[in-house]
Amino acid sequence: QERSLKKPKSASSFFFFKTCNKKLSRICGNSQSVGSRGISTLRNFLQSRNKVYTEQVYVRPPPWSDSLPTIYAITPTYYRFVQKAELTRMSHTLLHVANLHWIVVEDSDRKSAMVSRLLEKTGLNYTHLNVHVAEKLNSKGSGQRNLALKWLRDNFSVNDSNAGVIYFADDDNTYSLELFDEMRYTKKVSVWPVGFVGAVRFESCKVNASGKVYAWDVKYAQGRPFAIDMAGFAVSLQLILSKPDVYFRLHGIPSGHQETKFLEDLITLNDLEPKADNCTEVLVWHTRAQAPPLYRGYGDPYIET
Amino acid sequence: QERSLKKPKSASSFFFFKTCNKKLSRICGNSQSVGSRGISTLRNFLQSRNKVYTEQVYVRPPPWSDSLPTIYAITPTYYRFVQKAELTRMSHTLLHVANLHWIVVEDSDRKSAMVSRLLEKTGLNYTHLNVHVAEKLNSKGSGQRNLALKWLRDNFSVNDSNAGVIYFADDDNTYSLELFDEMRYTKKVSVWPVGFVGAVRFESCKVNASGKVYAWDVKYAQGRPFAIDMAGFAVSLQLILSKPDVYFRLHGIPSGHQETKFLEDLITLNDLEPKADNCTEVLVWHTRAQAPPLYRGYGDPYIET
Repeated sequence: QERSLKKPKSASSFFFFKTCNKKLSRICGNSQSVGSRGISTLRNFLQSRNKVYTEQVYVRPPPWSDSLPTIYAITPTYYRFVQKAELTRMSHTLLHVANLHWIVVEDSDRKSAMVSRLLEKTGLNYTHLNVHVAEKLNSKGSGQRNLALKWLRDNFSVNDSNAGVIYFADDDNTYSLELFDEMRYTKKVSVWPVGFVGAVRFESCKVNASGKVYAWDVKYAQGRPFAIDMAGFAVSLQLILSKPDVYFRLHGIPSGHQETKFLEDLITLNDLEPKADNCTEVLVWHTRAQAPPLYRGYGDPYIET
Repeated sequence: QERSLKKPKSASSFFFFKTCNKKLSRICGNSQSVGSRGISTLRNFLQSRNKVYTEQVYVRPPPWSDSLPTIYAITPTYYRFVQKAELTRMSHTLLHVANLHWIVVEDSDRKSAMVSRLLEKTGLNYTHLNVHVAEKLNSKGSGQRNLALKWLRDNFSVNDSNAGVIYFADDDNTYSLELFDEMRYTKKVSVWPVGFVGAVRFESCKVNASGKVYAWDVKYAQGRPFAIDMAGFAVSLQLILSKPDVYFRLHGIPSGHQETKFLEDLITLNDLEPKADNCTEVLVWHTRAQAPPLYRGYGDPYIET
């Protein structure tokens, strides 16, 4: 089985260094006190340079075709007991998706050995990044998402013909395979329902007879211009490249408003492309794993779980 | 890609009818009051006959080889909000496993349209069964597991050369792909660690220098002869066929003792085959999905989640 992939052009080695003191800390956030910021961003810079980009094969190579746009799935991840299990089963889903490139961004000061090994073994096309961001109100994961957006902008130019779509795929959701077919030919921003968010069975978009999204079928924070969960939309790579200053905002965002602020900076309601049979099928679910109740013991620390 | 599968011989059409009044209700349990038992078991019988056995292809056919033993993954399942999501991501894992036959047994009076469609679309080799069992203390899922064992015994003979292994794979666990390689050549019963059970980070087996399991590394109910979770062992098809009367016991089982009672009826400790590098690798995790907090609404009932 042949698999070809347009290699992203290699980023300028000094890009992170030049920007880390102002741009990177604005984009990704910074967990350190002001006094130690210089050391921290230098460490982040050194680690960020170690970009992993492999095409190793584990069981069967994921399907790849020269004619399909690439899906860039951006996954922020952080350490907790179920992290390895969640990333494991998510990788099994992604392995079925043609032309997928997984951008995994750890919320950590350095890349963990566990995630590094896991990614290497999956056989997926991936990029492994990390940036530690102190817990910020209402913007969890967005420092990591921003670093991935930056990586894409560093590695692709708006002038190239890069057919691709960006999807913010958290590591605890459940994704159907159909979902990836739905998003692949996104022109600007495509949208669809998400199960089990906003305290309802599913949130969705309202689509009129002309096939245009005109409102949102949600119960939570109904005043949002784009009342949609992170798992409910995808953005074309070209749009992200053509608006190089748009990132997730890390400060001053009310709860549940990350997505709408980001989309407000990119498009208007009229640009939305409803998918999943005019937003009537739930193809992704906001599942959450329980924290395992480990009150009796942790066992051999050398055995990884 | 060529895929061949030894078709199981078709079960005698009247087998269920002949046995449902005594044997089936003993094996699978029965949720009805004594008065309505006859009608209920007849309905179960009629539904049980509708065995689905397909080899439909969805995205890519699962890998298949004539030279590998078949893995029969037995999955009891029941309705709850996250059922479809859990079965969806589990199917993505199973689609990577060579020579796998998924036996899905619903805890319901009839096969649900949702599970039927889902199975048909996966492209997996599967058998879809159902039997409703009233909630029984400490034996959840075992009425369904017993029906699957019965199906295997109805469809395969101990005198045939059926290389295969049976694994009780609940629909909420997370399975690595390596796990299936570990269990495939089980002679009698193979065992390995399980993450996040028994209130510890992982339960495991103690293996001596001769490679024999001699004790259990658990904190919960340490007196059990086989102190192991359902996800921690696999049994050869031949052993199940050669001991046709061994089923999970539905009554009088203390909490956490289903597995040990079942294994005590099949083997002795000396028969165990430790896998996963002598029980030092965690390749399966007892993950649990949170029930989604849906206090604001359920939405269009015609939209399936």
